Amino acid sequence: METLADIGEDELIRRLVRGLKHDASVIAGPGDDCAVVKGSREPLVLKTDTVVEGVHFTAETPPRLIGRKAMARVISDFAAMAATPRHALITLIAPPQTAVKRVIDVYAGLRTMAEAFGVNIVGGETSKGNQLIITVSLTGTAPNQRWISRSQAKAGDGLYVTGRLGGSIKGKHLRFQPRMPEAHWMAKNLPVHAMMDLSDGLAQDLPRLAAACGLGFQVDFSALPRTAGCTTEQAWGDGEDYELLLALSQKTTVKQLAAWKLAFPKLKLTRIGELVKKENAPIAPAGGWQHFRP
Amino acid sequence: METLADIGEDELIRRLVRGLKHDASVIAGPGDDCAVVKGSREPLVLKTDTVVEGVHFTAETPPRLIGRKAMARVISDFAAMAATPRHALITLIAPPQTAVKRVIDVYAGLRTMAEAFGVNIVGGETSKGNQLIITVSLTGTAPNQRWISRSQAKAGDGLYVTGRLGGSIKGKHLRFQPRMPEAHWMAKNLPVHAMMDLSDGLAQDLPRLAAACGLGFQVDFSALPRTAGCTTEQAWGDGEDYELLLALSQKTTVKQLAAWKLAFPKLKLTRIGELVKKENAPIAPAGGWQHFRP
Repeated sequence: METLADIGEDELIRRLVRGLKHDASVIAGPGDDCAVVKGSREPLVLKTDTVVEGVHFTAETPPRLIGRKAMARVISDFAAMAATPRHALITLIAPPQTAVKRVIDVYAGLRTMAEAFGVNIVGGETSKGNQLIITVSLTGTAPNQRWISRSQAKAGDGLYVTGRLGGSIKGKHLRFQPRMPEAHWMAKNLPVHAMMDLSDGLAQDLPRLAAACGLGFQVDFSALPRTAGCTTEQAWGDGEDYELLLALSQKTTVKQLAAWKLAFPKLKLTRIGELVKKENAPIAPAGGWQHFRP
Repeated sequence: METLADIGEDELIRRLVRGLKHDASVIAGPGDDCAVVKGSREPLVLKTDTVVEGVHFTAETPPRLIGRKAMARVISDFAAMAATPRHALITLIAPPQTAVKRVIDVYAGLRTMAEAFGVNIVGGETSKGNQLIITVSLTGTAPNQRWISRSQAKAGDGLYVTGRLGGSIKGKHLRFQPRMPEAHWMAKNLPVHAMMDLSDGLAQDLPRLAAACGLGFQVDFSALPRTAGCTTEQAWGDGEDYELLLALSQKTTVKQLAAWKLAFPKLKLTRIGELVKKENAPIAPAGGWQHFRP
């Protein structure tokens, strides 16, 4: 089995970037000290995210799905702001005894997902390390300044989630579809006051959104849209749903919600509660994922 | 001793971003799904780079110097293109038992270096992992399109390096100064055809520059500017010099080189050889650093 130690850094990079597709925005891609791409008058949007062996995937995870997940997670963050990703840098850390084929397959997963969302991979970095780690840094734009933060919601706003929650570990965490068209549609057609993607579980992420707005929340737990076979506790506490959590204005109309159903008939949009003033917030049960915690 | 496991992810991030300084270009910094910054009509420049415990630093390295190095390495890549860095994202991977103080100090090193070069830290990501790893992703601009690639040199161009080479492991690899003002001065005042920074050693990096230009090279080994106490072999093979390697036009004048001495009297600029057609290139001795190689 050919390993990274056999071929070394230069040959690895040569194989990884061979045949990379770039659109007209790329002035200089891999092979220089930095990548150079066309500038933009619109605001730039930046995000980095990382997947670590033993945390976000295992030694048994098919390598293409590792790469797919690494890219999809960051694209999901762009969706959460109704922004458009454009250019990616990939940092790859791996033990020298890693099979070259494994890394090539990880990269194939990265590329497939990048191409599906119009993202150019324009550079990166490799280093040896004790475990396989892929970090994706993504830049893009927010057209028409219509991007959505997680901090502008008001007390009384309704809380909604897309799709179904819980049990992602059974496979969705590797195969989820970033809610990019849905998020752009929402930014255009619904009075969205705040939005974020659910990566650490509703139990962690909803308090973060509420805190960013200086608010509390109340949740109707019986309304949580559960993945088939999942309990309410799992829908509340499990991480890696990569669904959207939104705060919609109190003035959202039935007609607006009907338009959603027409546009995305296969994806539920469920009201799960509302944002309230801090002093009116009930105590929520714990759950969700925090890095570093035992 | 307080560890990351004691305080968890949210509290760690809160402590890391407290008091971060941002200039007017930052629209939304840490705390949202992505960072948002002002766009630019100029080309965007992108680079990511990573430092790994046991590879780029040791358990004994003072944490501030780890952070300093992580940021300085990427800034050095921007210098190598005569580009201007503006916004950074930081990915921090660490074992849960890591002392909080160590991470705070790493971040202090990152911040000090960022502030010195006008870089805004606008976001990042944390994850647990088996060893301490810091990845810096940097975006910026190339004013007036006067950026310099490593691929546009011609046969007959003179090869020059700044400073002295070799022995960086004795301390310079942690305390080097990115050659930012020097690179911008050169881009403006010298006929620079190609430039790169020396991170893996002249023995690795010079062949890369030559290959990017489709050329070979010949080096006058007796001319290599050596760090005090270093041999020619070390000046040729040691990594992490973070000096600039340049290809200057054959038409470079004595007056132009005299202007360099006047502008930067304390930094040597040494002619070490020239680029030649591939078929005229002598065989160069091996050396330098390749990741993954035993």
